[in-house]
Amino acid sequence: MKLSEETCEACRADAPKVTDDELAIMIREIPAWSPVVRDGILQLERIYTFRNFADALAFTNRVGAIAEEAGHHPAILTEWGKVTVTWWSHKIRGLHRNDFILAARTDALFCTDPD
Amino acid sequence: MKLSEETCEACRADAPKVTDDELAIMIREIPAWSPVVRDGILQLERIYTFRNFADALAFTNRVGAIAEEAGHHPAILTEWGKVTVTWWSHKIRGLHRNDFILAARTDALFCTDPD
Repeated sequence: MKLSEETCEACRADAPKVTDDELAIMIREIPAWSPVVRDGILQLERIYTFRNFADALAFTNRVGAIAEEAGHHPAILTEWGKVTVTWWSHKIRGLHRNDFILAARTDALFCTDPD
Repeated sequence: MKLSEETCEACRADAPKVTDDELAIMIREIPAWSPVVRDGILQLERIYTFRNFADALAFTNRVGAIAEEAGHHPAILTEWGKVTVTWWSHKIRGLHRNDFILAARTDALFCTDPD
């Protein structure tokens, strides 16, 4: 099953972080994403580019919609022609499998952009 | 005239940056904003807090609307319950009077929030 088709599970404070091996495997499905460490927390980040501000903001809203649906929320930085999306799991201060699922779904939003 | 009621002027690469004295005066009208230096560029930044993600994203869209109207675009970081807005003028790599006007207008959006 593709990551984007998996179901997110409830993330509790004692949920397991992804292991290095799991990360190495799952990142292959979302190769445009980079693992980044910020404030000591491992996160997944990708920059999407657009033709203008309006297209960027429209994408932000689409990402917001899947976040609300999943009950899991990223940081979304909207700028002229650019949206930076960062996923991580606040409760475990790191990456859960859910983050990879949502990253894959974010990619699917971009690929299906009517533009 | 209040900053929020002033008109933005076209910002060219040779437009003047605000002086320290001008900054000290104008910041009094937008006391919740902080001058920050990022990548060597002086910017204005404020964090707004909300009850949830949806309210934060709604505010992001309202900021986006005044940005489009002014033809001047900030960086807007949308997170659960929080929006960080950063204004600066790319062309002059610093702060123009326009940024203070837009910061004041951003505050007005927040103050008039029906919630």
